[in-house]
Amino acid sequence: MRILTSVLTVSAVASVMFAMDDTALIKKAKDAGLEAIPSDTKVLMKKIDPKGEMTKERIELGKMLYFEPRLSKSSLISCNTCHNLSIGGVDGISAAIGHKWTANPHNLNSPTVYNAVLNKAQFWDGRSPHLADQAQGPIQAGPEMAAPKELAVERITSMPEYVAMFDKAYGKGTKITFEKIADTIAIFEKTLVTPSPFDAYLNGNKKALTKEQKEGMATFIDKGCASCHNSMAVGGSMQPFEVTAKYKFAKGDFKGDKNGMVKAPTLRNVTETAPYFHNGQVWDLKTAIKEMGSVQLGLNISDTDADKIETFLTSLTGKKPVIIYPMLPPSTAKTPVPLAD
Amino acid sequence: MRILTSVLTVSAVASVMFAMDDTALIKKAKDAGLEAIPSDTKVLMKKIDPKGEMTKERIELGKMLYFEPRLSKSSLISCNTCHNLSIGGVDGISAAIGHKWTANPHNLNSPTVYNAVLNKAQFWDGRSPHLADQAQGPIQAGPEMAAPKELAVERITSMPEYVAMFDKAYGKGTKITFEKIADTIAIFEKTLVTPSPFDAYLNGNKKALTKEQKEGMATFIDKGCASCHNSMAVGGSMQPFEVTAKYKFAKGDFKGDKNGMVKAPTLRNVTETAPYFHNGQVWDLKTAIKEMGSVQLGLNISDTDADKIETFLTSLTGKKPVIIYPMLPPSTAKTPVPLAD
Repeated sequence: MRILTSVLTVSAVASVMFAMDDTALIKKAKDAGLEAIPSDTKVLMKKIDPKGEMTKERIELGKMLYFEPRLSKSSLISCNTCHNLSIGGVDGISAAIGHKWTANPHNLNSPTVYNAVLNKAQFWDGRSPHLADQAQGPIQAGPEMAAPKELAVERITSMPEYVAMFDKAYGKGTKITFEKIADTIAIFEKTLVTPSPFDAYLNGNKKALTKEQKEGMATFIDKGCASCHNSMAVGGSMQPFEVTAKYKFAKGDFKGDKNGMVKAPTLRNVTETAPYFHNGQVWDLKTAIKEMGSVQLGLNISDTDADKIETFLTSLTGKKPVIIYPMLPPSTAKTPVPLAD
Repeated sequence: MRILTSVLTVSAVASVMFAMDDTALIKKAKDAGLEAIPSDTKVLMKKIDPKGEMTKERIELGKMLYFEPRLSKSSLISCNTCHNLSIGGVDGISAAIGHKWTANPHNLNSPTVYNAVLNKAQFWDGRSPHLADQAQGPIQAGPEMAAPKELAVERITSMPEYVAMFDKAYGKGTKITFEKIADTIAIFEKTLVTPSPFDAYLNGNKKALTKEQKEGMATFIDKGCASCHNSMAVGGSMQPFEVTAKYKFAKGDFKGDKNGMVKAPTLRNVTETAPYFHNGQVWDLKTAIKEMGSVQLGLNISDTDADKIETFLTSLTGKKPVIIYPMLPPSTAKTPVPLAD
């Protein structure tokens, strides 16, 4: 009799879930701060490109520069090496490896470039306000691409095709500066937005999510995950870390910004961006979900609930833009040679 | 008067060149062993795919595997790292750098993958008869991708999308072996043929080359360059090396095959594949041309003639196939993790 009651209770709870009205769930999500990528491209563009700087010419040039290994000292590493667009915009390793096979000195994991435009801050410590600023960092950083500004500029200006493309993109006689190179890379990166079933659902298509994904979304919100992972990025803003417990997978000396705040990563495409956390020490999503429950929310998230949340997270895996692999201009006699040492 | 005669003589020689009949020059080229990529795709396919193995499904899968960094021990290096399709199918550095930033122990330069299918032998010492055999080498080689066969197979089979694609490409239940992976990469590589103005000219379009390129082609043949750089690859076969003089840019211990023969590289896209020679020690084409004249032909090629030959070589820069950058399947719980050490 006890068993039967228990079964009935579970069924009753489940049926409340299944019966939850889509309109109510969408309202619940929006009230929790979750936000869809607009289905109207014009609306989206107004958000990511308020000044109308993203011309076709700049996007194409930015794509070339994004894939350009000669922006690195060795001429072997491009933005795409660590933010590989074919594997979720990441490198799939725990801590980034760069010039001369140097591991990131703070043991930091490469965040995805997909939807990075939607983040409110860039880098794990949020020290950069936007992509154009962010892009200047890794090109110069010793353990990443290791190219002094002057070398990067000299390499690009040595190739007449690039000079012509900058002229076309910004006006004849445009001076190619390091900042202009980074700005142009950022313009390409802004195109890397990946709408997913989650967005279609919040935008009103009630069939875009499965029953299980909807149930998982409710659990995600009820447990409090959306208190950090919200807005259009489903994350991307600075948050306090280790609120209720110590992070169990500590490795490296990273302590966040000067107030101990850490950027909550976007959860978009999270099924494709393992390993997880700032130090990439967790390889499976379920462990990551339970760890965040403990560290941030003071909750012991059950296996069942973690599974539900994981099911919801699959709805954040989005459609990637089609990218024609760029053909880059040949080096010339003026191009500074690769420096592998 | 002496000066005038001399000027007249030069003019006379030049006008003979300029006046050279296209039909005669094309015949001269063919007699010298030069061969165009057929303009008829069916004829070309018969040559590179006599057994009809290059299905759409296999090409697509092969492209994914070509760009797949998880085929390397570190999960950071793909075929495309050293044979980068955006920069002439090479890495643009002197000696290849691979796993743990290890330079090629014999100081060997990465040859281009474009038109490699047209080569009669693969690798600088010609030890491999075709691309499917070749592709097995770098994946396993310690200083390159460093992945044992078993690791490569385990990584690929851990991703259901790949299993489904192999099923679709080769039939349900196909066993994914290391050899099958390499075979499939080779099928993609066979698509990387780049017809150029040179081919259009040999195929009968007399306007495909400039007057200067035609003059350069005649010089190329007259000097004897085509005695090694011939056939459809304009190179690609084993040849004696240091026939008439020592190679002046020696570095590394490479001595060719057991008979001292070295693969004459294809000259297709040579304007995009610096640095030159097996050890990548020469950065400009003119020096390379003059060095080959000395080392292989016993000739002191004048600056004027070297310029002419260089002008001809620009006609070998071909049209690259459009490549949609592949989206690769996400790793799973079963995927062996990256091993960067």
